[in-house]
Parts: sequence; C-alpha cells; structure tokens
Amino acid sequence: MRALLEAEARSLLNFAKVGRLGCVVNGEPYIVPVNYLFDDGAIYIHTLPGRKLEALRAHPRACVQVDEIRDDFNWRSAIAYGDFEEVRVPSDRQSILNKLLAHFPLLTPVESQMIEDANAPDSVVFRIRVDRITGMGEG
Amino acid sequence: MRALLEAEARSLLNFAKVGRLGCVVNGEPYIVPVNYLFDDGAIYIHTLPGRKLEALRAHPRACVQVDEIRDDFNWRSAIAYGDFEEVRVPSDRQSILNKLLAHFPLLTPVESQMIEDANAPDSVVFRIRVDRITGMGEG
Repeated sequence: MRALLEAEARSLLNFAKVGRLGCVVNGEPYIVPVNYLFDDGAIYIHTLPGRKLEALRAHPRACVQVDEIRDDFNWRSAIAYGDFEEVRVPSDRQSILNKLLAHFPLLTPVESQMIEDANAPDSVVFRIRVDRITGMGEG
Repeated sequence: MRALLEAEARSLLNFAKVGRLGCVVNGEPYIVPVNYLFDDGAIYIHTLPGRKLEALRAHPRACVQVDEIRDDFNWRSAIAYGDFEEVRVPSDRQSILNKLLAHFPLLTPVESQMIEDANAPDSVVFRIRVDRITGMGEG
C-alpha cells in the first residue's frame, strides 16, 4: 500500500462521477453517494434539502472520497477535504448548474427542470472548497 | 427518493463486499474503502496498522456505507452505525479470520499468511458493533 501523489489523487477526482460525501452529524460520521463536479479547486454538488444539507450547515467540514477498485490488489482511493459553502449568487449558481448539466446529461427531468430554472426554491447548489487532497493505493 | 426499509438496508449490507468505512479524525470526516463481513450484528474488518486504526482508536464512533448504483435514477445506499472494538481474544480472532478468508478467497498471499497465523503481530481484526441501520434509495 502506498500514498498517492497529489496529481494521481487529483486525476481520480477529475474523472470519477460518483463520490462519497462524508460529513459529521453529532460526532457521528455520515456518508452518502453523490454526483459531483471538481472544478477550479472546489467540488460542486446539486441537491434537494435533506439530511446531508442539514448536516453540512451544522458542521461545515466535509470530504469527498472517490475510488477505482479493479480488484483486491489493484485499487486507488482519494479524498478531498474542505469547507462547505452554499452558492447563493444567482449568476454563479446558474453557471455551476450549466456545468453540472453538461457533466451529467442523464439527470432526471425534475433535476433538469430545476437546473433550467435556477430560481427553483428547493434546489441547493453548494461547494466544498478543497484545501487538502490525499490518496492511497495498491498495485 | 425514499427511505429504505431496514430489511432492504440489511440486505445491501449482507451482499456488498466493498464498503466505505467512515470515521472522524479531529472533527473531520475520513472515508476509506474496505472489505468487510457483516455477521451477527457486527461488521468485521481485517487491517494493518495505519490511519484508519489510529482514527478509530481515538474516536470509536464509525459507520460503514454500501451502495448499489445502477444509474442516476436507480440506486440504493445503506449505512450501518456502531462503535469500534478490537477483537483481541485469540479464538474469536481466528474464527473471524476464517470467515473473512472464506468470504474473500482472493486475499493477497501476505493477508492469507496473516490469517493462517492469527498471532502475526501487525494484523488487527476489529468489529463495528452495529446499533443502527438506515438507507435511502431511488427507483
């Protein structure tokens, strides 16, 4: 087992589409799979209100973990750590939603509709401002 | 999106072989992929010393998350929460290692050797005593 170079870990984060968002709820770890976009030093996620959003608002320190597991001897895992921040400026929000839509063409009709209408009330765009990236691998 | 019945979440935990272990390190979430065995109300993991073990010893509250993602509209994710506990009794340790070996026939030669010799000094077997299981899904 070895530590990944930061460039390897960044590459995993760039190419994975599903990550596991980790946060802390009352001292307990919480993990949920997310689609995300890693762009310009931040991880962007689009979501509806729910447990992860409540958790991140209460405890903004978060991570996104991605991995590529070929078999037990050949795998790599990377983690990006950072602070949660909601994107509220409408023009920023729209620009991020457009990028997310380009990255995930298979969003549900409801999500696509939310993205076209950036003012839809329920939808939340947030970023994790990444300040540290680490990774491990084998093989 | 809907909450999974506990039976659905347990079934995911029973059949997945790779999970993501979540723990908390200095207030920060930490996630690492693990092979595990869910047996008799606990999740068992075999590991070498390293960051996850240090983290769990310092902050024993942990979770293991598993998911089955067919596509963006069809996915299920389950989380088992519990407290970390090292398995030190040699007979318990050997019996768990035998089950792990039966479950993961593709362990590396080094790991198989460690399992045959349950007294190998570096290898650690631990459990997460599961006290809560939740899950979400779509489709």
